[in-house]
Amino acid sequence: MLEPERSEPELTAGIRRGERRALAKAITLMESSRADDDRRAAALLESLPAPDEPALRVAISGPPGAGKSTLIETLGLRAVASGLRTAVLTIDPSSRRSGGSILGDKTRMPRLSAHPLAFIRPSAAGTTLGGVGRRTRETMTLLEAAGYGLILVETVGVGQSETEVDGMVDLFVLVLLPNAGDELQGIKRGIMELAGLILINKADGVFTQAAELTHAQVSAALPLLHREKNDAGWQPRVLMVSALEERGIDQTLEALRTFQRQMTANGALAKKRLRQASGWMWDRVHDGLRQRFLADPAVQRLAAELEPQVRRGEVGAVMAAERMLRVLDGSGNGNHVGNH
Amino acid sequence: MLEPERSEPELTAGIRRGERRALAKAITLMESSRADDDRRAAALLESLPAPDEPALRVAISGPPGAGKSTLIETLGLRAVASGLRTAVLTIDPSSRRSGGSILGDKTRMPRLSAHPLAFIRPSAAGTTLGGVGRRTRETMTLLEAAGYGLILVETVGVGQSETEVDGMVDLFVLVLLPNAGDELQGIKRGIMELAGLILINKADGVFTQAAELTHAQVSAALPLLHREKNDAGWQPRVLMVSALEERGIDQTLEALRTFQRQMTANGALAKKRLRQASGWMWDRVHDGLRQRFLADPAVQRLAAELEPQVRRGEVGAVMAAERMLRVLDGSGNGNHVGNH
Repeated sequence: MLEPERSEPELTAGIRRGERRALAKAITLMESSRADDDRRAAALLESLPAPDEPALRVAISGPPGAGKSTLIETLGLRAVASGLRTAVLTIDPSSRRSGGSILGDKTRMPRLSAHPLAFIRPSAAGTTLGGVGRRTRETMTLLEAAGYGLILVETVGVGQSETEVDGMVDLFVLVLLPNAGDELQGIKRGIMELAGLILINKADGVFTQAAELTHAQVSAALPLLHREKNDAGWQPRVLMVSALEERGIDQTLEALRTFQRQMTANGALAKKRLRQASGWMWDRVHDGLRQRFLADPAVQRLAAELEPQVRRGEVGAVMAAERMLRVLDGSGNGNHVGNH
Repeated sequence: MLEPERSEPELTAGIRRGERRALAKAITLMESSRADDDRRAAALLESLPAPDEPALRVAISGPPGAGKSTLIETLGLRAVASGLRTAVLTIDPSSRRSGGSILGDKTRMPRLSAHPLAFIRPSAAGTTLGGVGRRTRETMTLLEAAGYGLILVETVGVGQSETEVDGMVDLFVLVLLPNAGDELQGIKRGIMELAGLILINKADGVFTQAAELTHAQVSAALPLLHREKNDAGWQPRVLMVSALEERGIDQTLEALRTFQRQMTANGALAKKRLRQASGWMWDRVHDGLRQRFLADPAVQRLAAELEPQVRRGEVGAVMAAERMLRVLDGSGNGNHVGNH
């Protein structure tokens, strides 16, 4: 970090006061891949008091082209207009290679970015895990401590990642296009089963009729789905929305609020978060293993030697990996992670 | 393993003779998550001689519902009919939870499964990496050594995983539906850029005209794409195919052969594989780190203690992860991975 580092207590205090700058700094600390930053990040997270009221954590998923970004901005604007502090976590697909500047992404939600009650944070696509940022859970915890009441997580990709994302949030929202048709736009049954709320987007203009048909189809299909992951006591809903005509936006916000109220009252939300915690623990363990290994100077030296040989075909990838892993057996002091 | 284990030299010999049983056993060994199996697997891979002629490794990707499975079976049947030994690696989406029996998947390609020159191997979805099996690269190496000339890898999911898959194969094939329309079925530009061959599937019956339109659209779009990952000297092609009417199947096989011939002659294929090797090395390193850590009895004891506490909310996920990772610092003998 180029700027002088703020101590954890300072950051903690800044976050609790809802300071955007402290929040941004803390998220950057979370996303750092340096092993010592990781320990500082863990200490910071542990230092945060439980929020007075948990935020509602919502994943917004759906096929590319379904209009997720515009819908999130419209929904976010309505939420902040009602006084609800709203945070949006997005993935910037353009930053996969650079891994660096991600400021460009903010322009995707220009009006919401400018609002004092909103906080938008894009993660570089290169650092993602299951279609969301690698540190989405940690970031949500910070946002909650900073007083954000609604956290919208935009996911990228359709397919493998939904189950993982569902394991991080309170509510999984699926955005569909009006022309769902027979195969529901290739959305796999398993994904429908995760959704507690399904939004038929772009229900406007010439698409209105198609949206109504899709709404009817999805509504008819819902009771047939085997919802083994069902949120206890919550009946999934289907709504028609239009970001363009701002149709269904109030109903969507109302559905989110109802979900939160109902699932808090019956204790299901608290139970869900506890179920998710062990997945979170393991993700941090695996990430930590990787970071510590790479921080070892012996590993770095060996990698610098082996990588070019592998690229020239002089050493096979499998043999090279075995040699790297042998560093674990060879170190004499029981601390292969380096002593920094 | 319940059956008596075969030694690596026996397995190596069996694979070189093209024995299906030896091949299946070796793949199971590759997919094992036991640290000692992992070392045996590495030794086996190292013992395999380079094949006389490398197989063509092809990823078949595309949105769910595009008809990938049927197309792969049709293509595979045509390939084996021409005497080409063909292997298919698939993901069984239904096995995410069980992680166990995956025999059911074979029924998805019943005719190809029955052919003596074909080998079909489904991986459980729970063990996937980037939309393909966790050990796809290792399995392809085995198949190549066993004399398979064409390896078709079916991917699941659209979105994040394509770049990863492209990093494992020689050629990335994208299957689209005839009604691509303006947004090309939500297929992101980045994915189009990976494809060396684009197949407009279901180009039959009432869809023929739509397929022709899509073909024209995609053909027109191709030269505009910024193909920075382009395979040197290969001009991407677009073909209309129909598994139902077996249309375009010969042309597809011919395109695969041309790709292999051309890219072998100009050395691009060999270069591509070397570029991919360092990614393979790192994947194995990270996987090995994880396996060795979990094999440590101290880690297992701590996990058994912490996991229930995390699930009851008595210990936070972040703190629990820190405590698990501290095992690395605490062991006195420099070998935290256990001595087995």
